[in-house]
Amino acid sequence: MPPEQPPATRRAEAERNRATILAVARAAFAEPEADVSMAEIARRAGVGMATLYRNFPGRRELLETLFADEVDALCDGAERLADQAPGAALHTWLDRVFAFFGGKRRIGAELLEHSDAGNPFFGRARDRVLDAGRPLLTGAQRAGEIRADLTLEQILDMIGAVSAIRGEPGYVQPIYRTVLTGLRASPPAEPHIKRLFDGMPPA
Amino acid sequence: MPPEQPPATRRAEAERNRATILAVARAAFAEPEADVSMAEIARRAGVGMATLYRNFPGRRELLETLFADEVDALCDGAERLADQAPGAALHTWLDRVFAFFGGKRRIGAELLEHSDAGNPFFGRARDRVLDAGRPLLTGAQRAGEIRADLTLEQILDMIGAVSAIRGEPGYVQPIYRTVLTGLRASPPAEPHIKRLFDGMPPA
Repeated sequence: MPPEQPPATRRAEAERNRATILAVARAAFAEPEADVSMAEIARRAGVGMATLYRNFPGRRELLETLFADEVDALCDGAERLADQAPGAALHTWLDRVFAFFGGKRRIGAELLEHSDAGNPFFGRARDRVLDAGRPLLTGAQRAGEIRADLTLEQILDMIGAVSAIRGEPGYVQPIYRTVLTGLRASPPAEPHIKRLFDGMPPA
Repeated sequence: MPPEQPPATRRAEAERNRATILAVARAAFAEPEADVSMAEIARRAGVGMATLYRNFPGRRELLETLFADEVDALCDGAERLADQAPGAALHTWLDRVFAFFGGKRRIGAELLEHSDAGNPFFGRARDRVLDAGRPLLTGAQRAGEIRADLTLEQILDMIGAVSAIRGEPGYVQPIYRTVLTGLRASPPAEPHIKRLFDGMPPA
């Protein structure tokens, strides 16, 4: 009989397991064609099904955690960008929003199967993202770097619509760049904006 | 017993009926909440159900005709714009495409219920619109008025995505204007572009 582990060790191992499960699930969902069954997630994480279900009683709980973690990252990221130049900060954040919409589509779509669009879970996530991004937009609009006739709701809807266009990244990215160009209130002068619009044809 | 009408009069009346049916059906579909049952269309057109079904054996035939008529108008319109200044011509045409996507959504959505997205009817319509618009885009890109890194397919997908954003026109229009701004390769100098971007905040 193996010696019993001390409680602190057991807790640390449980936390490691949970983190590993989330990491492999996130990676699996990011692969367009990957098998993301609970069995495959347990296999990739190197844990038994009992451990998986002890952490996430059902698939929905796992999906909600993955989704909420990404929303957290998006919101925390907005705060950390607040001390950068306003236009650059907003653009960096919008790039993450675009990646979030694209990458989370599969998780979000499956979550909808387990609940529905009226699920307050989605409304709360949207509200949190809006609250986090609003200071960045206000700053960029005050600095005259972003057109003033759009709200953050409109900008997020626009980016969400572009991210839903079907096609390879090479097809969708120029459309996304076009939309970002349109957000500028005036032609770019700062190097950070020039960098962001790399790949645009010369005027 | 009323005297029998001569054949030419009967033909003219039949054509008038068909045109009236299409006109009232088009108007009904453009009203967001309107009843667009076959009975209501017959009532508005002032014809009996027998006349309606003689012209359109089923609802699907009526929807396809409405859709095809709009595609025709879009294609004919592109040809007629060919002698205008390239940037202005493309922008005018894209405005019509945007209105088409918005206005035809209900007809298109219902057509999908009667067939499916793989219906060659839709593919042919898309091909015709692409063929009609391509000379306008090529002209505007050669003139340096539109960015050169987008194809017409990408531009139509972008405009389609924006037109699908839910909201009042006052919510969606600024998003559409943003996208048009992004399409410009350089800041506007010509009055026609200035007019198109009226309502934009000063840079």
